[in-house]
Amino acid sequence: MSKILAINAGSSSLKFQLIEMPEEEVITKGLVERIGLNDGVFTISVNGEKNKKVQDIPNHEVAVHLLLDQLISTGIIKSFNEIDGVGHRVLHGGEIFSDSAIITDEVLAEIEKLVDLGPLHMPPNISGIKVFRKILPNVPQVAVFDTAFHQTMPKSSYLYSLPYEYYEKYGIRKYGFHGTSHKYVTLKAAEMLGKPIEELRLISCHLGNGASIAAVHGGKSIDTSMGFTPLEGITMGTRSGSIDPALIPFIMKKTGQSAEEVINVLNKKSGLLGITGFSSDLRDIEEAANVGNERAELALTIFANHIHKYIGSYVARMNGVDAIIFTAGIGENSAAVRERVLRGLEFMGVYWDKDLNREGGGERFISYPFSPVKVLVIPTNEEVMIARDVIRLAKKLNNLSK
Amino acid sequence: MSKILAINAGSSSLKFQLIEMPEEEVITKGLVERIGLNDGVFTISVNGEKNKKVQDIPNHEVAVHLLLDQLISTGIIKSFNEIDGVGHRVLHGGEIFSDSAIITDEVLAEIEKLVDLGPLHMPPNISGIKVFRKILPNVPQVAVFDTAFHQTMPKSSYLYSLPYEYYEKYGIRKYGFHGTSHKYVTLKAAEMLGKPIEELRLISCHLGNGASIAAVHGGKSIDTSMGFTPLEGITMGTRSGSIDPALIPFIMKKTGQSAEEVINVLNKKSGLLGITGFSSDLRDIEEAANVGNERAELALTIFANHIHKYIGSYVARMNGVDAIIFTAGIGENSAAVRERVLRGLEFMGVYWDKDLNREGGGERFISYPFSPVKVLVIPTNEEVMIARDVIRLAKKLNNLSK
Repeated sequence: MSKILAINAGSSSLKFQLIEMPEEEVITKGLVERIGLNDGVFTISVNGEKNKKVQDIPNHEVAVHLLLDQLISTGIIKSFNEIDGVGHRVLHGGEIFSDSAIITDEVLAEIEKLVDLGPLHMPPNISGIKVFRKILPNVPQVAVFDTAFHQTMPKSSYLYSLPYEYYEKYGIRKYGFHGTSHKYVTLKAAEMLGKPIEELRLISCHLGNGASIAAVHGGKSIDTSMGFTPLEGITMGTRSGSIDPALIPFIMKKTGQSAEEVINVLNKKSGLLGITGFSSDLRDIEEAANVGNERAELALTIFANHIHKYIGSYVARMNGVDAIIFTAGIGENSAAVRERVLRGLEFMGVYWDKDLNREGGGERFISYPFSPVKVLVIPTNEEVMIARDVIRLAKKLNNLSK
Repeated sequence: MSKILAINAGSSSLKFQLIEMPEEEVITKGLVERIGLNDGVFTISVNGEKNKKVQDIPNHEVAVHLLLDQLISTGIIKSFNEIDGVGHRVLHGGEIFSDSAIITDEVLAEIEKLVDLGPLHMPPNISGIKVFRKILPNVPQVAVFDTAFHQTMPKSSYLYSLPYEYYEKYGIRKYGFHGTSHKYVTLKAAEMLGKPIEELRLISCHLGNGASIAAVHGGKSIDTSMGFTPLEGITMGTRSGSIDPALIPFIMKKTGQSAEEVINVLNKKSGLLGITGFSSDLRDIEEAANVGNERAELALTIFANHIHKYIGSYVARMNGVDAIIFTAGIGENSAAVRERVLRGLEFMGVYWDKDLNREGGGERFISYPFSPVKVLVIPTNEEVMIARDVIRLAKKLNNLSK
């Protein structure tokens, strides 16, 4: 039995889960917020109850000390020695990392070279790693990249039709994101379907505030909707997804914004929020649509259409599909979105049950048993995937050092 | 019997066809090139032979005079009175024009308001109209818009997921292009299939140096790959098609170009040219791929994949399809591209014949007779479509004035 910490460090936040392996059971989880601001907030679940503490948390180092001290003071662990490994979610692995990696000085140096590809997320990801290495120097640390799962994409999927030297010189290509989630749910789907993943063609729809679709053939990602950044693809909570690139100078001219500012609008004020004008939260939008708000209805239609069309394109990409998977906040919880997405896929053999779609929870089939293409709802679990990778790589490390 | 001139005016060129209606027979066609530059070139077909003249052609007015004089001096017509109507191809009809329009002062004023939406193409389109109205004041002139056919798209297809006021204030939405071509080939397909177009679901692939795909349900465009400008969608000869919008500031920063300059690269140095590094011409690229050039092979794969995936997404959009149509330069002539596009669509009932695909010419089926989804090759004819609209609208005009 091992205890693994799964860490997701943002610029002013740090999410954590302590997971018992190989049982894959969450021992505790929590969140440090407002790091570097006044009145930091530390939240941790102890025996199912939320324990909250407000105090100034000037930096990530203080946050990590606070987290570890709390693990001990609440009796969750007796000493740091009980932590067998730490897994860090890292946004970008570039073309270097096609798998998670034990963090050595060399690996960290490689990760630092990729900051340019994720200027917002990479610096806090790296800070998180450095702080844990400092405080727990003898515990194996593993970097788990959001992009790694998609490194199996063929060049014809990841190359943009731009001057080729942009790829060679600047690393401009499609990387794809949500890899840890797409990997987790497709492995789980194979289990539920009772078939080896090598024999399956799957479409994974990760629909949260960020959203991406992946075509997974034989367990390998062969295409995905997000691109060089998580802005590309379908419409999202506040992100536009793909638009005509020529709109950027047009919007700049019309509004007097810089290119960076326009991209900021595309990331933060577009998507469902842009269309409805009042919310990026799907629950609000469904409520409004139910009482006749036209722009809410329009936003739902556009969102579902984008997903529906990606499913069509990925079925074509694989010349068929065994199952379609819905996961993440919206994918797991919105029966209405799933219904809109699935309506009109009979041509390819998707037959689903309205009742199964509306009722129940957790991992489940919502397609009819006779449907040639199965439809699955699978709660994602990126933290478990991170913990699995820590165990797998730490074992390798142990074997090597023996 | 009527003689209709179909005109396509570019910034330094003017293409024309004189068409006998209702036979839809081309009497003559030709091209004025290098207008406003030294050594203008005028080419016209007379009795199947190309007649070429080099002389300075300072502006579009001189070009039109030259064209009309040549029609008389070569004996093609005896007097201007024989020209019963002129149809002008116009890039953009905005949201105002959902059909072709008889050009009045009011219509021309409306067209002039749309220059912003097509700053490169609209000014020469408008010059062409003005010159013909001046020289042939008593001949009905009709504007035929590249966007009009797509005005039937539902809002959920044409609205971008941007702040809603961008649509209201600046007209930012998907317009789509190649409408005249998509309309022509889908009407022709209905004829070939022997079914009323109202009952058909069609996917039209217009693959030329510019390329777009349209989903046409019951004769109405419900979705198309080009967007606010003809840059969006699939990869093309020199155009990138859709890319991650966040790449624009990234490329600006890396290369020191302005946003406009980057869009210029996306329009003129990307696409097949960008990937291969040596040509935007599909024939060159096929030749190079045949002798093992890897980047040529890659360009072909990417181009075909994009089309293949759009077909998948539009089949999903319509929950099935009756026929897929290939048209324009590449669509009509490249058996190899059609083969790459069609490979792997068996899941949706597309069965095609390698021999039929490689042999023959003109309008034809290349699917097996038993294939649930038919595949058609149809040479496009935008000029005939323009001439038809001139006749239809001129008739209305006559009826009104009676």
